Amino acid sequence: MRWTELETEACPVARALSVIGDRWTLLILRDCFLGLRRFDDFQSNLGITRHVLADRLKTLEARGLLRREQYQERPPRFEYRLTETGKDLFPVLVSLITWGNAAVPSPEDEPYRLVSRQTGKTVRPVFCDAETGARLAPRDLRLLMPGAPVPEGQEPAS
Amino acid sequence: MRWTELETEACPVARALSVIGDRWTLLILRDCFLGLRRFDDFQSNLGITRHVLADRLKTLEARGLLRREQYQERPPRFEYRLTETGKDLFPVLVSLITWGNAAVPSPEDEPYRLVSRQTGKTVRPVFCDAETGARLAPRDLRLLMPGAPVPEGQEPAS
Repeated sequence: MRWTELETEACPVARALSVIGDRWTLLILRDCFLGLRRFDDFQSNLGITRHVLADRLKTLEARGLLRREQYQERPPRFEYRLTETGKDLFPVLVSLITWGNAAVPSPEDEPYRLVSRQTGKTVRPVFCDAETGARLAPRDLRLLMPGAPVPEGQEPAS
Repeated sequence: MRWTELETEACPVARALSVIGDRWTLLILRDCFLGLRRFDDFQSNLGITRHVLADRLKTLEARGLLRREQYQERPPRFEYRLTETGKDLFPVLVSLITWGNAAVPSPEDEPYRLVSRQTGKTVRPVFCDAETGARLAPRDLRLLMPGAPVPEGQEPAS
Protein backbone atom coordinates (compact mmCIF):
# COMPACT_ATOMS: atom_id res chain seq x y z
CA MET A 1 0.00 0.00 0.00
CA ARG A 2 1.17 3.52 -0.71
CA TRP A 3 0.40 6.47 1.50
CA THR A 4 -1.37 8.20 -1.39
CA GLU A 5 -3.71 5.22 -1.74
CA LEU A 6 -5.04 5.42 1.81
CA GLU A 7 -7.98 7.55 0.74
CA THR A 8 -9.69 4.68 -1.00
CA GLU A 9 -9.01 2.07 1.68
CA ALA A 10 -12.01 0.36 3.21
CA CYS A 11 -10.62 1.05 6.69
CA PRO A 12 -11.88 4.34 8.16
CA VAL A 13 -8.64 4.81 10.13
CA ALA A 14 -6.67 4.70 6.89
CA ARG A 15 -9.05 7.13 5.21
CA ALA A 16 -8.88 9.52 8.15
CA LEU A 17 -5.09 9.44 8.04
CA SER A 18 -5.14 10.22 4.32
CA VAL A 19 -6.42 13.65 5.37
CA ILE A 20 -4.85 14.33 8.77
CA GLY A 21 -1.93 11.88 8.89
CA ASP A 22 0.71 14.23 7.53
CA ARG A 23 3.25 15.72 9.89
CA TRP A 24 2.13 19.05 11.36
CA THR A 25 -1.44 18.76 10.11
CA LEU A 26 -2.90 17.79 13.49
CA LEU A 27 -0.90 20.50 15.21
CA ILE A 28 -2.28 23.09 12.79
CA LEU A 29 -5.77 21.83 13.60
CA ARG A 30 -4.98 21.99 17.31
CA ASP A 31 -4.10 25.66 16.81
CA CYS A 32 -7.42 26.17 15.04
CA PHE A 33 -9.24 24.70 18.04
CA LEU A 34 -7.25 27.09 20.22
CA GLY A 35 -8.67 29.97 18.20
CA LEU A 36 -5.80 30.80 15.87
CA ARG A 37 -6.87 31.82 12.39
CA ARG A 38 -4.08 33.64 10.63
CA PHE A 39 -1.11 32.38 8.71
CA ASP A 40 1.42 34.36 10.72
CA ASP A 41 -0.07 33.18 14.01
CA PHE A 42 0.15 29.54 12.97
CA GLN A 43 3.65 30.14 11.73
CA SER A 44 4.94 31.76 14.89
CA ASN A 45 3.18 29.28 17.17
CA LEU A 46 4.47 26.20 15.31
CA GLY A 47 7.78 27.54 14.08
CA ILE A 48 7.55 25.53 10.87
CA THR A 49 8.55 26.81 7.46
CA ARG A 50 6.09 28.97 5.56
CA HIS A 51 6.29 26.51 2.69
CA VAL A 52 5.18 23.54 4.81
CA LEU A 53 2.46 25.57 6.51
CA ALA A 54 1.08 26.87 3.20
CA ASP A 55 1.04 23.35 1.80
CA ARG A 56 -0.86 21.92 4.79
CA LEU A 57 -3.38 24.76 4.88
CA LYS A 58 -4.05 24.34 1.18
CA THR A 59 -4.69 20.64 1.66
CA LEU A 60 -6.93 21.21 4.67
CA GLU A 61 -8.97 23.70 2.65
CA ALA A 62 -9.16 21.37 -0.35
CA ARG A 63 -10.31 18.52 1.87
CA GLY A 64 -13.01 20.63 3.45
CA LEU A 65 -11.66 20.91 7.01
CA LEU A 66 -10.85 24.61 6.82
CA ARG A 67 -12.43 27.44 4.91
CA ARG A 68 -10.62 30.60 3.91
CA GLU A 69 -12.21 33.96 4.62
CA GLN A 70 -11.00 37.36 3.49
CA TYR A 71 -10.64 39.79 6.37
CA GLN A 72 -8.79 42.61 4.61
CA GLU A 73 -9.08 44.02 1.10
CA ARG A 74 -5.85 45.92 0.43
CA PRO A 75 -3.71 43.96 0.43
CA PRO A 76 -6.03 40.95 0.38
CA ARG A 77 -5.59 38.85 3.52
CA PHE A 78 -7.34 35.69 4.56
CA GLU A 79 -7.96 33.76 7.71
CA TYR A 80 -8.68 30.08 8.16
CA ARG A 81 -11.64 28.75 10.07
CA LEU A 82 -12.72 25.24 10.93
CA THR A 83 -15.64 23.90 8.90
CA GLU A 84 -18.16 21.55 10.49
CA THR A 85 -16.12 18.62 9.20
CA GLY A 86 -13.07 20.15 10.83
CA LYS A 87 -14.88 20.71 14.11
CA ASP A 88 -15.96 17.08 14.07
CA LEU A 89 -12.30 16.19 14.61
CA PHE A 90 -12.39 17.45 18.17
CA PRO A 91 -12.80 13.97 19.69
CA VAL A 92 -9.55 12.94 18.02
CA LEU A 93 -7.80 15.89 19.65
CA VAL A 94 -9.41 15.15 22.99
CA SER A 95 -8.25 11.53 22.84
CA LEU A 96 -4.74 12.60 21.91
CA ILE A 97 -4.64 15.05 24.82
CA THR A 98 -5.72 12.40 27.29
CA TRP A 99 -3.25 9.85 26.01
CA GLY A 100 -0.40 12.34 25.62
CA ASN A 101 -0.79 13.49 29.21
CA ALA A 102 -0.73 9.94 30.54
CA ALA A 103 1.77 8.24 28.26
CA VAL A 104 4.29 10.99 27.54
CA PRO A 105 4.40 13.07 30.73
CA SER A 106 5.48 16.66 30.42
CA PRO A 107 8.51 17.93 32.30
CA GLU A 108 6.32 20.87 33.29
CA ASP A 109 2.95 21.11 34.95
CA GLU A 110 -0.11 20.30 32.91
CA PRO A 111 -1.74 23.64 32.30
CA TYR A 112 -3.95 22.38 29.47
CA ARG A 113 -7.59 22.10 30.25
CA LEU A 114 -10.75 21.08 28.53
CA VAL A 115 -13.60 23.21 29.74
CA SER A 116 -17.30 23.28 29.03
CA ARG A 117 -18.27 26.34 27.03
CA GLN A 118 -21.51 26.46 28.96
CA THR A 119 -20.27 26.16 32.54
CA GLY A 120 -16.59 27.06 32.16
CA LYS A 121 -15.77 24.07 34.32
CA THR A 122 -13.03 21.58 33.58
CA VAL A 123 -14.41 18.34 32.15
CA ARG A 124 -12.84 14.93 31.68
CA PRO A 125 -14.36 13.17 28.67
CA VAL A 126 -14.84 9.41 28.76
CA PHE A 127 -16.62 7.16 26.31
CA CYS A 128 -20.20 6.06 26.84
CA ASP A 129 -22.47 4.07 24.55
CA ALA A 130 -24.72 6.48 22.64
CA GLU A 131 -27.67 4.14 22.97
CA THR A 132 -27.51 2.96 26.57
CA GLY A 133 -25.34 5.66 28.16
CA ALA A 134 -23.24 2.94 29.78
CA ARG A 135 -19.59 3.78 30.38
CA LEU A 136 -17.36 2.08 27.81
CA ALA A 137 -13.90 1.09 28.95
CA PRO A 138 -11.58 1.03 25.94
CA ARG A 139 -10.52 -2.51 26.65
CA ASP A 140 -14.11 -3.73 26.70
CA LEU A 141 -14.34 -2.77 23.05
CA ARG A 142 -13.22 -4.75 20.12
CA LEU A 143 -12.68 -3.53 16.57
CA LEU A 144 -13.95 -5.96 13.96
CA MET A 145 -12.70 -5.66 10.44
CA PRO A 146 -13.61 -8.26 7.83
CA GLY A 147 -10.69 -9.92 6.14
CA ALA A 148 -8.38 -9.47 9.09
CA PRO A 149 -7.54 -12.64 10.99
CA VAL A 150 -9.18 -13.06 14.37
CA PRO A 151 -6.56 -14.62 16.63
CA GLU A 152 -7.49 -17.68 18.63
CA GLY A 153 -9.04 -17.07 22.01
CA GLN A 154 -9.96 -13.53 21.07
CA GLU A 155 -13.22 -14.07 19.25
CA PRO A 156 -15.81 -11.56 20.32
CA ALA A 157 -18.53 -12.77 22.61
CA SER A 158 -21.74 -13.47 20.72
CA MET B 1 9.96 23.80 16.12
CA ARG B 2 11.39 20.59 14.76
CA TRP B 3 9.50 17.36 14.65
CA THR B 4 12.14 15.72 16.83
CA GLU B 5 11.53 18.34 19.51
CA LEU B 6 7.85 17.54 19.94
CA GLU B 7 8.54 15.15 22.78
CA THR B 8 9.42 17.93 25.18
CA GLU B 9 6.61 20.29 24.18
CA ALA B 10 4.22 21.36 26.90
CA CYS B 11 1.27 20.51 24.65
CA PRO B 12 0.04 16.93 25.14
CA VAL B 13 -1.07 16.71 21.50
CA ALA B 14 2.47 17.46 20.38
CA ARG B 15 3.90 14.92 22.81
CA ALA B 16 1.44 12.27 21.67
CA LEU B 17 2.38 12.90 18.04
CA SER B 18 6.07 12.57 18.90
CA VAL B 19 5.28 8.88 19.50
CA ILE B 20 2.45 8.04 17.09
CA GLY B 21 2.61 10.83 14.52
CA ASP B 22 4.86 9.08 12.05
CA ARG B 23 3.36 7.74 8.86
CA TRP B 24 2.17 4.13 9.21
CA THR B 25 2.54 4.03 13.00
CA LEU B 26 -1.19 4.39 13.70
CA LEU B 27 -2.00 1.82 11.05
CA ILE B 28 0.40 -0.64 12.68
CA LEU B 29 -1.35 0.01 15.98
CA ARG B 30 -4.72 -0.46 14.31
CA ASP B 31 -3.51 -3.88 13.17
CA CYS B 32 -2.47 -4.65 16.74
CA PHE B 33 -5.99 -3.83 17.95
CA LEU B 34 -7.30 -6.14 15.24
CA GLY B 35 -5.25 -8.94 16.77
CA LEU B 36 -2.25 -9.06 14.46
CA ARG B 37 1.03 -9.83 16.24
CA ARG B 38 3.61 -11.03 13.76
CA PHE B 39 5.93 -9.14 11.48
CA ASP B 40 4.84 -10.97 8.34
CA ASP B 41 1.17 -10.40 9.12
CA PHE B 42 1.69 -6.65 9.57
CA GLN B 43 3.74 -6.59 6.42
CA SER B 44 1.22 -8.39 4.24
CA ASN B 45 -1.72 -6.43 5.66
CA LEU B 46 -0.09 -3.01 5.21
CA GLY B 47 2.04 -3.73 2.15
CA ILE B 48 4.79 -1.41 3.37
CA THR B 49 8.48 -2.15 3.08
CA ARG B 50 10.08 -4.41 5.68
CA HIS B 51 12.52 -1.64 6.44
CA VAL B 52 9.81 0.89 7.34
CA LEU B 53 7.87 -1.70 9.32
CA ALA B 54 10.93 -2.79 11.31
CA ASP B 55 11.77 0.81 12.08
CA ARG B 56 8.26 1.63 13.35
CA LEU B 57 8.02 -1.56 15.44
CA LYS B 58 11.39 -0.82 17.02
CA THR B 59 10.26 2.68 17.95
CA LEU B 60 6.93 1.47 19.33
CA GLU B 61 8.79 -1.06 21.49
CA ALA B 62 11.29 1.55 22.66
CA ARG B 63 8.47 3.95 23.55
CA GLY B 64 6.65 1.30 25.55
CA LEU B 65 3.57 0.82 23.35
CA LEU B 66 4.46 -2.68 22.19
CA ARG B 67 6.37 -5.49 23.86
CA ARG B 68 8.18 -8.21 22.01
CA GLU B 69 7.62 -11.83 23.00
CA GLN B 70 9.49 -14.83 21.71
CA TYR B 71 7.13 -17.52 20.41
CA GLN B 72 9.65 -19.82 18.74
CA GLU B 73 13.17 -20.85 19.70
CA ARG B 74 14.79 -22.17 16.56
CA PRO B 75 15.00 -19.94 14.69
CA PRO B 76 14.10 -17.32 17.27
CA ARG B 77 10.86 -15.56 16.35
CA PHE B 78 9.02 -12.81 18.11
CA GLU B 79 5.57 -11.36 18.18
CA TYR B 80 4.46 -7.90 19.17
CA ARG B 81 1.75 -7.24 21.73
CA LEU B 82 0.18 -4.03 22.96
CA THR B 83 1.27 -2.92 26.40
CA GLU B 84 -1.16 -1.15 28.72
CA THR B 85 0.13 2.18 27.38
CA GLY B 86 -0.54 0.93 23.88
CA LYS B 87 -4.02 -0.27 24.78
CA ASP B 88 -4.76 3.16 26.23
CA LEU B 89 -4.58 4.50 22.66
CA PHE B 90 -7.85 2.83 21.78
CA PRO B 91 -9.91 6.04 22.19
CA VAL B 92 -7.72 7.70 19.56
CA LEU B 93 -8.47 4.88 17.15
CA VAL B 94 -12.16 4.98 17.99
CA SER B 95 -12.28 8.72 17.31
CA LEU B 96 -10.45 8.29 14.02
CA ILE B 97 -12.87 5.55 12.96
CA THR B 98 -15.88 7.73 13.71
CA TRP B 99 -14.46 10.73 11.92
CA GLY B 100 -13.10 8.74 8.99
CA ASN B 101 -16.48 7.14 8.37
CA ALA B 102 -18.25 10.48 8.41
CA ALA B 103 -15.74 12.78 6.73
CA VAL B 104 -14.11 10.51 4.16
CA PRO B 105 -16.84 8.11 3.08
CA SER B 106 -15.81 4.78 1.70
CA PRO B 107 -16.76 3.77 -1.83
CA GLU B 108 -17.77 0.45 -0.29
CA ASP B 109 -20.08 -0.50 2.52
CA GLU B 110 -18.91 0.10 6.08
CA PRO B 111 -18.23 -3.32 7.43
CA TYR B 112 -16.17 -2.09 10.37
CA ARG B 113 -17.77 -2.43 13.71
CA LEU B 114 -16.95 -1.67 17.31
CA VAL B 115 -18.45 -4.31 19.53
CA SER B 116 -18.58 -4.82 23.25
CA ARG B 117 -16.42 -7.74 24.33
CA GLN B 118 -18.98 -8.54 26.99
CA THR B 119 -22.18 -8.49 24.97
CA GLY B 120 -20.87 -8.81 21.41
CA LYS B 121 -23.21 -6.00 20.43
CA THR B 122 -22.26 -3.05 18.25
CA VAL B 123 -21.64 0.10 20.28
CA ARG B 124 -21.34 3.72 19.26
CA PRO B 125 -19.02 5.59 21.65
CA VAL B 126 -19.76 9.20 22.50
CA PHE B 127 -18.11 11.44 25.06
CA CYS B 128 -19.56 11.93 28.51
CA ASP B 129 -18.16 13.82 31.46
CA ALA B 130 -16.47 11.36 33.81
CA GLU B 131 -17.78 13.17 36.85
CA THR B 132 -21.38 13.95 35.97
CA GLY B 133 -22.05 11.42 33.19
CA ALA B 134 -23.53 14.23 31.08
CA ARG B 135 -23.19 13.86 27.33
CA LEU B 136 -20.44 16.15 26.00
CA ALA B 137 -20.91 17.48 22.49
CA PRO B 138 -17.51 18.23 20.98
CA ARG B 139 -18.46 21.80 20.18
CA ASP B 140 -19.47 22.46 23.76
CA LEU B 141 -15.87 21.89 24.74
CA ARG B 142 -13.06 24.34 24.58
CA LEU B 143 -9.35 23.60 24.77
CA LEU B 144 -7.47 26.09 26.91
CA MET B 145 -3.75 26.36 26.53
CA PRO B 146 -1.81 29.05 28.35
CA GLY B 147 0.20 31.31 26.13
CA ALA B 148 -2.07 30.87 23.17
CA PRO B 149 -4.22 33.86 22.31
CA VAL B 150 -7.90 33.63 23.22
CA PRO B 151 -9.74 35.31 20.35
CA GLU B 152 -12.26 37.98 21.20
CA GLY B 153 -15.76 36.81 21.88
CA GLN B 154 -14.58 33.27 22.54
CA GLU B 155 -13.57 33.52 26.17
CA PRO B 156 -14.85 30.59 28.14
CA ALA B 157 -17.75 31.21 30.46
CA SER B 158 -16.64 31.52 34.04
